[in-house]
Amino acid sequence: MNTQSKQPFHDSTVTPVAASGVSITDPFWKNYMELVRNHVIPYQWEALNDRIPGAEPSHCIHNFSVAAGREKGEFGGFVFQDSDLYKWLEAAAYSLMWHPDKELEARMDWAVDLMAEAQQPDGYLDTYYIINGLENRFTNLRDNHELYCLGHMVEAAVAYHQATGKDKLLNIACAYADCVSAIFGTGKGQIPGYPGHEVAEMALIKLYHVTGQEKYRDLAQYFVDQRGQSPLYFAQEEAAHKRQKGWDGTLGYEYYQAHEPVRQQREAVGHAVRAVYLYSGMADVAKETGDESLLSACEALWDDITQRKMYVTGAIGSSQFGEAFTFAYDLPNDTVYGETCAAIGLVFFARRMFELTRHSRYTDVMERAIYNGVISGMSLDGTAFFYVNPLEVDPLACQKDFHKSHVKPQRQKWFGCACCPPNVARLLSSLASYAYETDAKTFYLNLFVGADIHTDVGGGPLTLQVETRYPWDETVTVRILETAASAWTMAVRLPGWCRDARISLNGEAMDLTASNLIKNGYAHLTRQWKAGDVIQLHLAMPVERIAANPRVREDVGKCAVMRGPLVYCLEEADNGPDLHGIYLNQEPDFTVEERPDLLGGISVIHAKGRCLTEAGWDSPCGDSAFPPLYQPYQPPVLAPKDLTFIPYYAWANRGLGEMLVWVRI
Amino acid sequence: MNTQSKQPFHDSTVTPVAASGVSITDPFWKNYMELVRNHVIPYQWEALNDRIPGAEPSHCIHNFSVAAGREKGEFGGFVFQDSDLYKWLEAAAYSLMWHPDKELEARMDWAVDLMAEAQQPDGYLDTYYIINGLENRFTNLRDNHELYCLGHMVEAAVAYHQATGKDKLLNIACAYADCVSAIFGTGKGQIPGYPGHEVAEMALIKLYHVTGQEKYRDLAQYFVDQRGQSPLYFAQEEAAHKRQKGWDGTLGYEYYQAHEPVRQQREAVGHAVRAVYLYSGMADVAKETGDESLLSACEALWDDITQRKMYVTGAIGSSQFGEAFTFAYDLPNDTVYGETCAAIGLVFFARRMFELTRHSRYTDVMERAIYNGVISGMSLDGTAFFYVNPLEVDPLACQKDFHKSHVKPQRQKWFGCACCPPNVARLLSSLASYAYETDAKTFYLNLFVGADIHTDVGGGPLTLQVETRYPWDETVTVRILETAASAWTMAVRLPGWCRDARISLNGEAMDLTASNLIKNGYAHLTRQWKAGDVIQLHLAMPVERIAANPRVREDVGKCAVMRGPLVYCLEEADNGPDLHGIYLNQEPDFTVEERPDLLGGISVIHAKGRCLTEAGWDSPCGDSAFPPLYQPYQPPVLAPKDLTFIPYYAWANRGLGEMLVWVRI
Repeated sequence: MNTQSKQPFHDSTVTPVAASGVSITDPFWKNYMELVRNHVIPYQWEALNDRIPGAEPSHCIHNFSVAAGREKGEFGGFVFQDSDLYKWLEAAAYSLMWHPDKELEARMDWAVDLMAEAQQPDGYLDTYYIINGLENRFTNLRDNHELYCLGHMVEAAVAYHQATGKDKLLNIACAYADCVSAIFGTGKGQIPGYPGHEVAEMALIKLYHVTGQEKYRDLAQYFVDQRGQSPLYFAQEEAAHKRQKGWDGTLGYEYYQAHEPVRQQREAVGHAVRAVYLYSGMADVAKETGDESLLSACEALWDDITQRKMYVTGAIGSSQFGEAFTFAYDLPNDTVYGETCAAIGLVFFARRMFELTRHSRYTDVMERAIYNGVISGMSLDGTAFFYVNPLEVDPLACQKDFHKSHVKPQRQKWFGCACCPPNVARLLSSLASYAYETDAKTFYLNLFVGADIHTDVGGGPLTLQVETRYPWDETVTVRILETAASAWTMAVRLPGWCRDARISLNGEAMDLTASNLIKNGYAHLTRQWKAGDVIQLHLAMPVERIAANPRVREDVGKCAVMRGPLVYCLEEADNGPDLHGIYLNQEPDFTVEERPDLLGGISVIHAKGRCLTEAGWDSPCGDSAFPPLYQPYQPPVLAPKDLTFIPYYAWANRGLGEMLVWVRI
Repeated sequence: MNTQSKQPFHDSTVTPVAASGVSITDPFWKNYMELVRNHVIPYQWEALNDRIPGAEPSHCIHNFSVAAGREKGEFGGFVFQDSDLYKWLEAAAYSLMWHPDKELEARMDWAVDLMAEAQQPDGYLDTYYIINGLENRFTNLRDNHELYCLGHMVEAAVAYHQATGKDKLLNIACAYADCVSAIFGTGKGQIPGYPGHEVAEMALIKLYHVTGQEKYRDLAQYFVDQRGQSPLYFAQEEAAHKRQKGWDGTLGYEYYQAHEPVRQQREAVGHAVRAVYLYSGMADVAKETGDESLLSACEALWDDITQRKMYVTGAIGSSQFGEAFTFAYDLPNDTVYGETCAAIGLVFFARRMFELTRHSRYTDVMERAIYNGVISGMSLDGTAFFYVNPLEVDPLACQKDFHKSHVKPQRQKWFGCACCPPNVARLLSSLASYAYETDAKTFYLNLFVGADIHTDVGGGPLTLQVETRYPWDETVTVRILETAASAWTMAVRLPGWCRDARISLNGEAMDLTASNLIKNGYAHLTRQWKAGDVIQLHLAMPVERIAANPRVREDVGKCAVMRGPLVYCLEEADNGPDLHGIYLNQEPDFTVEERPDLLGGISVIHAKGRCLTEAGWDSPCGDSAFPPLYQPYQPPVLAPKDLTFIPYYAWANRGLGEMLVWVRI
């Protein structure tokens, strides 16, 4: 096993600004965060407590109550049901950071107390095995998610500690991590296993940061290093317990990213959420240990995903079978999986790769995913969620064609497997930590999110105000309100989608071609800043047509429409049915119209196009009731058509209908 | 229940020419029939006897031996495994008709003797229940195929009787039919059920024709009339046996075409093979009873299939899930099911609809299916078979994408569920009965198949010689060698695909615009024929581009290439990979080249096209190892490309590779 432990890659580590120092004021995001706070978090608490009339019960709190001895009963729900509470706690903790709420905090403390009661003397805490028999714990790592639950518990504990300063949940998580740490490893009498579903890797690095205890970093590193080593643990476990094959029977150990040691992995494979969670953990471990071989694997995996397996919306996972990656350039729009959680996982991976490299190619993807494939997962009123985020939908096909039956044309209230809603909630609640990062002497403006920010840069406190109507408006204004006296760098991401970015400083245009000003896709503005300095960023946002690489079979002859970071789509509500017959003109005469009244306030894009008509196909064929199905080819007759595009994230908020991202041209 | 029993629709019934009177000489078909005789029938006999090394055992003969008490053992294979023997017997019987073979006949007699030994005193014969317990017979009509096996037994018995004049198998089939007839019905103490998988309906009509016993027609009519009546038998059966839902749980009773009485059915739904088998039986009953409401349902179902749910190859069944129809105009080319048996069933339905209406719209589809979607099911050497007949294949996708895993890029040796190979065998062996039909005063030339034909028309013997190199050549010559003295009609189908059909009589061109000459798509040549008369048909076969109705989402912007009855395709072997990036020119300059050396002798089509290049996409994106996945749209750069099309039926005979029918234009 590789146990190298080099120095980190940079003198000074890039880390997110503490969320507690940020007050997001951005109209676009504030609305989402309020939805999460006012609707999603309270609703999910009710769901965890099985109090949603008509919904499938979660059993989650019930399971903890039984494990704690407060109630009698059986375990209910999925084997990973505990994680729903942990994700809720994490989202709620982030919410507390920007909006203290005594009632919510009390509710969380109640849940933490319940967890404490359920926890075993040796720190073990997984209600499935506590209820069903501890003698079987850790005997099915492949399927049974005990280490996945550890991961989410740790993430919740860290967030809750950061939000409230309270230790109780952190102590619970440390105790479980200690229990796992003692049991797992390659030492004598230890289990040489690792998580079937990854997440603990990145969680344990957070725990290391908060506690300063290297054993948690070492456990994360062990999980990363041991994965895929020969002899393969999952195969041994299967044999030892005479267990039937799991996903390895169909998709191979690739499903679990356990087919080879992680440093040898160069292609993103298997279950997409598991994959990006693992890769995020690998990046975290690489950052802590300075392990070049791990970084190199992360870079290769990143390239494979983002250059060969990612939808234009930032969605990943091309197939419903195994919720998995398939093969390079296989990006079907209508049978896509594109799980919301996978796009979120890609955001996790992106931020970590940025922290390792400080390069905008990662934060560009982060922005793409967040503004499109992540927020598409939640309805504009915060009450319904997509698990699958398709790029082309015909509701009839979803209903009648089994191969599309996983694609829902409308968001659902709550899932039996409720991974996505709390995942969206925790990402949105912690948006600040993706938007703004710092090292000792640099403030990185990754995402253009309006906020009041208090942090430390350049050896002293920094107070900034970011003001923008992004993604609708091209202008972002950053005001320095308070700063250290020493020189530091304001690093502003120049988005990859933007072909004309300008920056002015105190009203004066800067020459962005000046040497060394732009590095790794960021404009680095270094000076001794003073209070009152104003940086204004102008990001030209013409409507762009985007083409996919010709190897993407499904997108040949088509284009997507984007403006700024937003992918747009056609919806039946605006354009009528039969979207598959629409062609965008070569000269589409795009115009942008602000529609504050529509879909929570959006800019729509109008364009000139044409649509297939049934001219030449409109009369019944012989005695038949229907027009001909096949006939000698004549160039199709197209009629002019005015098209209206809406942002992709806002689709499916106006009832059932067709939707299309890739339109013929 | 509707028990109307009117007169048949025509004074004189159209029936197939007896196969025993036909000697097929056609180079195209003779080859297939020889393959069936020399390879398929002997190979399948070995398979039925579990003597194919390495192949999954059939268990079929074993099951009969156990049921007959000759062996001890358990039932093996599918619940409908008996039908494999029956389909083999039927195919072998047809083969005997044109190629007597004492050894084969002895083998068949051996099998018939075995069946006789297995048959129960009351006539019941289904080895699954004989072996596993007769007390449960007829308790699971929905799933367990006892009546399906009856149907195939009857079809085999009729064919064997026609081929050899022997009664033994016919008596076995009559006894089982009598047993079923006594048990099923709406009378007191009877079971008001019907087949879960249809086929008995059309078989029993054949049995009625051969035996003259009306009870068999009545049983067929009962099955047709009772299907879908309220209360629904399958639902009652489920309830009575506390049985879990079958396909009705996902696809509804539509899967079994039992969702409503058949006369109300207007849309083809559910399992495609079952559907067309039922509709064939409905047409048969309509023909016998003169029931207009049944004919009307058949016509509506026919239109729904052929004008809204049929691939250009004659394949039907758009979805692997339930091997079923989905919805109108849903014709995906790469996830298609298109089972060989379903195309064969469409041929059955087509012939019956022709017999009812004498209209070429039915025989046109029959030809389309036979020359494309049926024979594509068998390799050119007769040793391997497709179950699924796709119109677009990327072997990598079949391997890596679960949604395409039912699509095999190469034909398989033998299936566990071996319905298709014997079905192809029985169709090809009985081709004459589709090609030539007669009524008292008319000879119908449905398919242009070269043969020496002896039959009776016009009150006396008729001997004809049909000579052609169809489908490669445009000329079909029919010589009258012997004829009755009275006037009769030679009805020659003028194919729907042909825009310039000419007929000459004894070297003199006929005026096809003459009134009443063309009726229902057939040229009706009525006269007092004499020996030596020569009819020459010239069917212009330019290469045609075919468009699909604009409602077919998958084919927008694409065309198919046809010549005569043949659908053509692009194969990687001729055109390289990435077929999805090929565009056919608006002026494709088609040329036809005869290639006797290629794929058993075919005409290939050459055309001018273009292919997508990676120009503008060829350099790595930033530090990435790969070119960009998305970038601002530029009109794609296309390079000229010479294209070669081969007949669709001949694809996948040269190793693994991509294939495409619908090409961009």
